[in-house]
Amino acid sequence: MRIDIITVLPELLKSPFEASILKRAIDKGLVEVHTHNLRDFSTNNYNQIDDYQFGGGAGMVMMIEPIDKCISKLKAEREYEEIIYMTPDGETLNQSIANQLSLKENIILLCGHYKGVDQRVRDQFITREISVGDFVLSGGELAAAIVCDTVIRLLPGVLGNETSALTDSFQDNLLAPPIYTRPANYKGWKVPEILTSGNTPKIDEWREDQAYKHTQERRPDLLEE
Amino acid sequence: MRIDIITVLPELLKSPFEASILKRAIDKGLVEVHTHNLRDFSTNNYNQIDDYQFGGGAGMVMMIEPIDKCISKLKAEREYEEIIYMTPDGETLNQSIANQLSLKENIILLCGHYKGVDQRVRDQFITREISVGDFVLSGGELAAAIVCDTVIRLLPGVLGNETSALTDSFQDNLLAPPIYTRPANYKGWKVPEILTSGNTPKIDEWREDQAYKHTQERRPDLLEE
Repeated sequence: MRIDIITVLPELLKSPFEASILKRAIDKGLVEVHTHNLRDFSTNNYNQIDDYQFGGGAGMVMMIEPIDKCISKLKAEREYEEIIYMTPDGETLNQSIANQLSLKENIILLCGHYKGVDQRVRDQFITREISVGDFVLSGGELAAAIVCDTVIRLLPGVLGNETSALTDSFQDNLLAPPIYTRPANYKGWKVPEILTSGNTPKIDEWREDQAYKHTQERRPDLLEE
Repeated sequence: MRIDIITVLPELLKSPFEASILKRAIDKGLVEVHTHNLRDFSTNNYNQIDDYQFGGGAGMVMMIEPIDKCISKLKAEREYEEIIYMTPDGETLNQSIANQLSLKENIILLCGHYKGVDQRVRDQFITREISVGDFVLSGGELAAAIVCDTVIRLLPGVLGNETSALTDSFQDNLLAPPIYTRPANYKGWKVPEILTSGNTPKIDEWREDQAYKHTQERRPDLLEE
């Protein structure tokens, strides 16, 4: 898989890809992540990529021309299945969208910044708009990093233990059951006895039961789906 | 405001705080963000902070003792209004939670990693559990960065233009209307005439109308609230 990220702040996206699972996936050649500095596609001497909005109002708007140039260059090099704009009013990212995206070969993530992009960018170039949630970020960069993280960890070979991702929350519309590790007794706070019983079928039953109860308590909406 | 982030991957959190609005807010002294490497609080020679889960199963669990030591140290230094665990089964972050958190003086964000923390950490130390959405990340670090971004940009003095944050999506349960900037005509794709009319009351009316329509189309749930 290849992910191209278009951004005005490539430096913000540095460390998330230089640590942990994302770095290992890149090092293993399981995914390529390329960031593109939108300013390199500016058409004037000031490296301008934003401008005041028509009709007045606070906040700058990202111009269409540099974005057009950057996307056109990438599209000339290879085919992209999705050109995604990260924006708070897009469809809300969930595990099923992450699963879908993990099956793509090449995708572009365009990070909004300032007040966002000129609407014509959305109308002409974007195939999908994704939000990470109902809150406002100072830019789409962290949102793009989130998409990369959720998607890349699903690629075959990225997680050491294949079963690990499958028992995460949401993969089966259930939240994960409580988990415990050593010591069995810490300051008088004890691990549930069942977990140290060695009775695997009973433990599995307990976990399923706990996952269900936990989901019913916190997220009954997941059970209705 | 002061935010303390407890993590096993402090290096992942470097660049988001060294760029853009977050860096400026820190430089201006409007917020302090401190990251704490959980491994520094390990009690053995291997800097161990995770262990196998009781009852068997894939994935490691973050141990209670290093977390207890780190939180206790911080609590001895100052009072914290919230000790927040970043976890996919927490309450879902939204703009109203961001607004609430922006009024706090000191908060701790504990980043889950691997399969998560020992349940006793949640039962004993955590005052609030927050998720950034219904998807699984390889760790809570990017989620913590998201919380910092949404919250810090709301602090007085962080955004240059105070009105800018107030006209963002979600602040009034409406998505933002479309925005445009120069050129007015790009490859035959034109800006709506109203926006270049100079008629401010009409423009405001158009924007409100568009914001409402856009919200009704994409997120009717926001209008019901």
